[in-house]
Amino acid sequence: MEKITLIHGEGGKQSNNLIKELFIKHFNNKTLKEMGDAACLTLSSKKIAFTTDSYVVNPIFFSGGNIGKLALCGTINDLAVSGAKPVYITAGFIIEDGFPYKDLEEIVSSMGTEAKKAGVQIVAGDTKVVEKGLADGIYINTSGIGIIEDNININAKNVATGDVIILSGTLGDHGTTISCERNNFGIKGDIMSDCAALNSLVEEMLNVCPKIHMMRDATRGGLAAVLNEIAEMSNAEITIYEKDIPISDGVKGVCYLLGLDPLYLANEGKLCAILPEEYSESVLEVMKKNPLGKDAAIIGNITEGKKGKVYLKTIIGGTRIIDMPSGIQLPRIC
Amino acid sequence: MEKITLIHGEGGKQSNNLIKELFIKHFNNKTLKEMGDAACLTLSSKKIAFTTDSYVVNPIFFSGGNIGKLALCGTINDLAVSGAKPVYITAGFIIEDGFPYKDLEEIVSSMGTEAKKAGVQIVAGDTKVVEKGLADGIYINTSGIGIIEDNININAKNVATGDVIILSGTLGDHGTTISCERNNFGIKGDIMSDCAALNSLVEEMLNVCPKIHMMRDATRGGLAAVLNEIAEMSNAEITIYEKDIPISDGVKGVCYLLGLDPLYLANEGKLCAILPEEYSESVLEVMKKNPLGKDAAIIGNITEGKKGKVYLKTIIGGTRIIDMPSGIQLPRIC
Repeated sequence: MEKITLIHGEGGKQSNNLIKELFIKHFNNKTLKEMGDAACLTLSSKKIAFTTDSYVVNPIFFSGGNIGKLALCGTINDLAVSGAKPVYITAGFIIEDGFPYKDLEEIVSSMGTEAKKAGVQIVAGDTKVVEKGLADGIYINTSGIGIIEDNININAKNVATGDVIILSGTLGDHGTTISCERNNFGIKGDIMSDCAALNSLVEEMLNVCPKIHMMRDATRGGLAAVLNEIAEMSNAEITIYEKDIPISDGVKGVCYLLGLDPLYLANEGKLCAILPEEYSESVLEVMKKNPLGKDAAIIGNITEGKKGKVYLKTIIGGTRIIDMPSGIQLPRIC
Repeated sequence: MEKITLIHGEGGKQSNNLIKELFIKHFNNKTLKEMGDAACLTLSSKKIAFTTDSYVVNPIFFSGGNIGKLALCGTINDLAVSGAKPVYITAGFIIEDGFPYKDLEEIVSSMGTEAKKAGVQIVAGDTKVVEKGLADGIYINTSGIGIIEDNININAKNVATGDVIILSGTLGDHGTTISCERNNFGIKGDIMSDCAALNSLVEEMLNVCPKIHMMRDATRGGLAAVLNEIAEMSNAEITIYEKDIPISDGVKGVCYLLGLDPLYLANEGKLCAILPEEYSESVLEVMKKNPLGKDAAIIGNITEGKKGKVYLKTIIGGTRIIDMPSGIQLPRIC
């Protein structure tokens, strides 16, 4: 088979073969093999997190990942930062007629690999094919279920004055990678997407500090969007320090050249956590031991003052309000 | 706001406003209002069904429904026929730049209405916007969780010789409606899509007979695909009787005109159930009392013979093998 065609979305023999030869092969688990209308599962707890995201990233393949890896990691991360242990994932594919089979296989295979690494199972799926020109190659939806332990309660309402804000690593790697590769800027360097599943990191953080008040992964809209959402939901004032925010030299260079602000750039393997000050050093220590948190840093805290606002203390000593992003940064970043 | 633009998929202010003013308004539930990265939920049981489906139907609006109602009912039905009580749904939207806001509102509003009717909550969502020309208006993914009671076990492996096959109503209504409306055949009649949530019907059926062996809703590929899948999974022989299969006069007429076979046409509010013979009359009775099952009929049984095959006894006395559909019936039927 060289190309995916409309016939593969018809629910007949060819759809069935595609499921068996591609999806079941790479996602490889007992539940999927049952091929029911729904996956029948037994959970270890009645308290769960449930989330969904669709992925339309352009380009489909990029340095550090592809749309499949991104879709899987993105949904795992949404569950993890909600304090849940991700367990089951579904995958819905919308494919453009004529999409190369080998590209689909590479995408599906990397989803299978990441799922195994992250300890989750892809238990249900769906494939639709649309006519040529009515999609940009492939779009993927992933939904996921995670188990929440009884002692965990991640909620913006827990955020309190004095809490510390930890960022798990450098900002802007995904955003600058996509920006450079999409536009063929020809900028060569060591930048690549940070696309990664953060559930192991989160698990280690929660082991040290089950009282983490709030977490978010800084995807679309970047750290600026995440902190503004938290400030609004918690009615807290957030202050972050420019000098403490980790940014790689490569990303700094691209941001300088293209006039981008790393605070607003998308990340796909970074989270920020807000927690009581007394836990900050022990959490930071455990994070730095994990490759996904090696550049983790305390970047700010919850300050007393104007509620619902985010402030940046700049390197030269000024104070800047960090607004919710408005307008188009870079469409189809994820 | 007149049109959805790329800005609404950016995760910033405009995305936030769209969520608050449209999705939260129509899906109206406490969990969604939390606007977390994932919905945090407590289930009534640890035994669940989990499913996903993407919807790319063309046209988006059709007699009897629209893509939103279809997406919601489709996922509810996949859970219901797995023996689960649908409880939580997620909705992922991929929207083409320039899509009319009023059309999106109509779609979202009908999803809200159907969710309320069916007793499910839409607890998480996601919106992506792609450039003009890279989608056909709107695509929707719905994923869902349902609760499975301990005494229920719907599985093809339960199917046994002598079991009776009940179909919940007329065949081909959705398929013929989409076919006529997409191609502007100008065929006027009383045909409309059967798009409906079947969870109330299934609940009533299971109350009468918790021992239903197998159920499927007959969507893409029609009854032919469903029965072939069941025959293959259960390694059983299925025989159905043409004279007993309910088909409306309108659908019969269109099938005659266009050369379509109703056994292969998609339905979006019909299921077939396979159950022990002694329960067939009581299940049929309860089905007929529900508007969604008023045309229900016993259409066949599990016969002893060549395993994994589906046979049709025709009205004129012949026997026809009903194969798994192959090739393209009608793309983007759902």
